[in-house]
Amino acid sequence: MELVPGNTLITETPEQGRELAIMLARKTVGAIQTDAETRQLLRAGYATDADSLTMATHVVAVEFATVAAANNYWRS
Amino acid sequence: MELVPGNTLITETPEQGRELAIMLARKTVGAIQTDAETRQLLRAGYATDADSLTMATHVVAVEFATVAAANNYWRS
Amino acid sequence: MELVPGNTLITETPEQGRELAIMLARKTVGAIQTDAETRQLLRAGYATDADSLTMATHVVAVEFATVAAANNYWRS
Amino acid sequence: MELVPGNTLITETPEQGRELAIMLARKTVGAIQTDAETRQLLRAGYATDADSLTMATHVVAVEFATVAAANNYWRS
Amino acid sequence: MELVPGNTLITETPEQGRELAIMLARKTVGAIQTDAETRQLLRAGYATDADSLTMATHVVAVEFATVAAANNYWRS
Amino acid sequence: MELVPGNTLITETPEQGRELAIMLARKTVGAIQTDAETRQLLRAGYATDADSLTMATHVVAVEFATVAAANNYWRS
Repeated sequence: MELVPGNTLITETPEQGRELAIMLARKTVGAIQTDAETRQLLRAGYATDADSLTMATHVVAVEFATVAAANNYWRS
Repeated sequence: MELVPGNTLITETPEQGRELAIMLARKTVGAIQTDAETRQLLRAGYATDADSLTMATHVVAVEFATVAAANNYWRS
Repeated sequence: MELVPGNTLITETPEQGRELAIMLARKTVGAIQTDAETRQLLRAGYATDADSLTMATHVVAVEFATVAAANNYWRS
Repeated sequence: MELVPGNTLITETPEQGRELAIMLARKTVGAIQTDAETRQLLRAGYATDADSLTMATHVVAVEFATVAAANNYWRS
Repeated sequence: MELVPGNTLITETPEQGRELAIMLARKTVGAIQTDAETRQLLRAGYATDADSLTMATHVVAVEFATVAAANNYWRS
Repeated sequence: MELVPGNTLITETPEQGRELAIMLARKTVGAIQTDAETRQLLRAGYATDADSLTMATHVVAVEFATVAAANNYWRS
């Protein structure tokens, strides 16, 4: 299973870094719950629950902190 | 979809960095729950629940840590 | 709306840094729930719930980590 | 109100740094819930709930990360 | 009990770092709940609960932050 | 009470660092809930609840981040 798309944390822009952070979180979910149909079912539920969304948003924030540090914050 | 407004983490002031942190969190929510009407409905609920607010505040704190580091904490 | 009081993360002492961390968290709450009366109502509830208090304490800890780093931990 | 005992993050040993981390968390609780009697009541409840204890332990871990960094991890 | 497979945080690639982060989290679970059968039972439950999955994903994100820093983010 | 076994964050190996992270978390629990019998009772409950286990695992991850940084990630 691929957990890190492209096998690198380096991206060209913050926007791409953010997309990577989202993908990292999703790949972990896929590694724990390997059944795609089950994941699809769960997705419908949590995307309409405010706290579930906030929790997911938090995970993306933590992943992004790592990706941003890896890229020296795309400072220039 | 735009996940990082302006495609940069660099801001002129801490105040703007804080605004960016809030926007980053909101853009992630938008990426997970793409239906604006559903987001609007959820917003009404979580903004009147103390723990939901605290959870959202936490996400902003995590995003801000990254933005602040990116800007060397606007030290000078 | 003012999100960062004084628009700086730099404080003279750890004590002031801690006060800033608390204010940062509160300003975020104010940005999400803009109605002061609603905030007042919610406050009564969460301040008498142990887990709500712990969650709020956690947010302050995360904000303080950023403020402390910004100030090089007031090392001397 | 005193939020940072001694107004410094510098301690002589990791043990003292750990004590400071616990005190920082408690001082925040005191800043949010200013009534000592209420705090005493809440304490009885959360100290006998496993998840509440874990949440409190987490806050101490986050505070300690800051204190440890401030002290360069007491490396020598 | 082995808590860190290979007794090192250094990996050749981000992909391997991610696998290590997942293993670190699982080894901790094994250290707290030492009965393999109980762990197996719990696993069935949490892998079909969206919030449980998000919480587990969060732990992996935190472990990965450490592994990534240890490897200087596999920058070159 | 001893909160940091050996009063140092320095360990020889990542494995020992991980053991220290687990002990740091447990010592904090002991500082908050000082009655050993109560802790024993709580332990039975949380070790058979998936989310409680995940929360505990998270605390270990946060403590380990500090211990790993203190040891420069045992890089050589």
